Amino acid sequence: MDTQSLFEKLRQGDRAALAKAITLIESRKMDDLPDQSKLIGLCREIRSNSLRLAITGPPGAGKSTLIERLGLHLTKHGHRVAVLAIDPSSQKSGGSILGDKTRMERLSASDQAFIRPSPAAGHVGGVSRHTREAISLCEAAGYDIILIETVGVGQAEYRVQTMVDIFILLTVPGSGDGLQGIKRGIMEIADMVIVNKADGENVRMAKSAAVEIKAALRLSKPESDVRPVVITSAKTGFGIEDAWDIIDALKSDGDLNGSFSERRKRQDEDWFEEAIDIQLRQRFTSSKKLAVAKTKLADLVASRELDPLTAAGLYVEAVLNHSFSRQ
Amino acid sequence: MDTQSLFEKLRQGDRAALAKAITLIESRKMDDLPDQSKLIGLCREIRSNSLRLAITGPPGAGKSTLIERLGLHLTKHGHRVAVLAIDPSSQKSGGSILGDKTRMERLSASDQAFIRPSPAAGHVGGVSRHTREAISLCEAAGYDIILIETVGVGQAEYRVQTMVDIFILLTVPGSGDGLQGIKRGIMEIADMVIVNKADGENVRMAKSAAVEIKAALRLSKPESDVRPVVITSAKTGFGIEDAWDIIDALKSDGDLNGSFSERRKRQDEDWFEEAIDIQLRQRFTSSKKLAVAKTKLADLVASRELDPLTAAGLYVEAVLNHSFSRQ
Repeated sequence: MDTQSLFEKLRQGDRAALAKAITLIESRKMDDLPDQSKLIGLCREIRSNSLRLAITGPPGAGKSTLIERLGLHLTKHGHRVAVLAIDPSSQKSGGSILGDKTRMERLSASDQAFIRPSPAAGHVGGVSRHTREAISLCEAAGYDIILIETVGVGQAEYRVQTMVDIFILLTVPGSGDGLQGIKRGIMEIADMVIVNKADGENVRMAKSAAVEIKAALRLSKPESDVRPVVITSAKTGFGIEDAWDIIDALKSDGDLNGSFSERRKRQDEDWFEEAIDIQLRQRFTSSKKLAVAKTKLADLVASRELDPLTAAGLYVEAVLNHSFSRQ
Repeated sequence: MDTQSLFEKLRQGDRAALAKAITLIESRKMDDLPDQSKLIGLCREIRSNSLRLAITGPPGAGKSTLIERLGLHLTKHGHRVAVLAIDPSSQKSGGSILGDKTRMERLSASDQAFIRPSPAAGHVGGVSRHTREAISLCEAAGYDIILIETVGVGQAEYRVQTMVDIFILLTVPGSGDGLQGIKRGIMEIADMVIVNKADGENVRMAKSAAVEIKAALRLSKPESDVRPVVITSAKTGFGIEDAWDIIDALKSDGDLNGSFSERRKRQDEDWFEEAIDIQLRQRFTSSKKLAVAKTKLADLVASRELDPLTAAGLYVEAVLNHSFSRQ
């Protein structure tokens, strides 16, 4: 199927075409670059009043359960929901997303939902290097709510925050609280905090955790910029509607005061810069001559015959003097 | 002064020469690149049995006070100590290092110590883009203990961890504990945790915080890989010697089992890769033609006339077809 046909099928809501398009976008083959570019170009022409949400939190905070609840609530109210789940299981720590087949079973069954687990192989922080592109594809396919799930393993949150309109930190109450992912840095960049697992005996703990988080946010933020903190139980459904109402209000505010479009503009700049880095690397590694030069230089660094700075200078010279064939 | 003379002065322990060398290394002028490369090449020929330590933690944890105490303890025992303080005050949040003139007053006065606050302007996470080079210079200048101080603002810790032999997380006891920088991700990469401010009424709290952290580490690490947790008071000096003994033991272990040299080898690889990125960017931005092309493309992205992926592709083509003059 050519790119134009793939795009048209995707536009018609064909989920297999959307899945195929994401796979194309994730390809690292240099030959796929023109098609990738064409596809994204076509998708970007479609204007979409979408909402891009990231939900991050430590393993076990109930992210998937919450996303399923929220997704079902949204599809019931006429939204079309795409879930991009980032699987950091290949990394040091963190839970498995791909492994657990029963995840989001009910949401998967909905005609109004599309769920895509993305392997994050090789990319720092567990965020797929093509998440931005995948968002564009989902929007062109008519999904108006894009939910991105990441397990908080280090740098992931910082990167995913540069890809969405609203960045939500999910946490859980309990004695291990401080150790369970309420990170100072993350709290400061979160647009909203959800304290999940507010059910049964946990309700009181969840409430006091929320109070504590609110107090901490009040200390670190100016009065006018205090972020909402809500408690939910993804298990029972408690608080999900309230959480959505707050998210929806954040979106209305952001649309109205222009902060959302400002944010997306900045994100497009980031995307441009990142894509340059990725494509340059792709071009460099596809030249056998340069690859050989780099390996040799790396060996000289390893044997301490050359310092890393000088070796880098020599490689850069080789790159700039190399004649690249047009792709 | 030419680079060779600068190097020789630096080798003789001239602190002004060392300061000047670091300034040279921090220069972003393309014309300085050959001198930078030469200087690092010369410094790397000097074998040094140094120890590179990073100390990170939230603002107010007492990092500077601890580093001064530790530094004084070490100079008293014949070591020569260099402190590279990374100032993230230009970033979103975090404490000021450069601003506070009274910091490390006693250590500054020592002949055996060199203190360098490095502005981290423009680099992600508050780590100077030339910290690796500065470490090499200090080692060539005869400093055998390199202490790197960073305020924990997000990504900084992850980057600094890739530059040192031992990465220490400093934290403080208290009710705000969990919110005060004991981050799950950071704990997992720390080689050692120090609970500071164990003085006066805080002693009991510090002890129980240490117990809690040990328990958390035991959960997340295999039995054989549990990291030391110690309590100190930088104010009174309590625990500083113990902390050093443990650091020293970690160094002996690391030297003996080869893990330190393995780690440094990996770090040289990272350095090589980072230096390539930095130098490529330097070369690209120094070409007026490319700079103009990039601005134009960025404008087209901003006006949504071009998608970021396609724009990146066009820029990459322009770069690869550009004839760079040899520097």
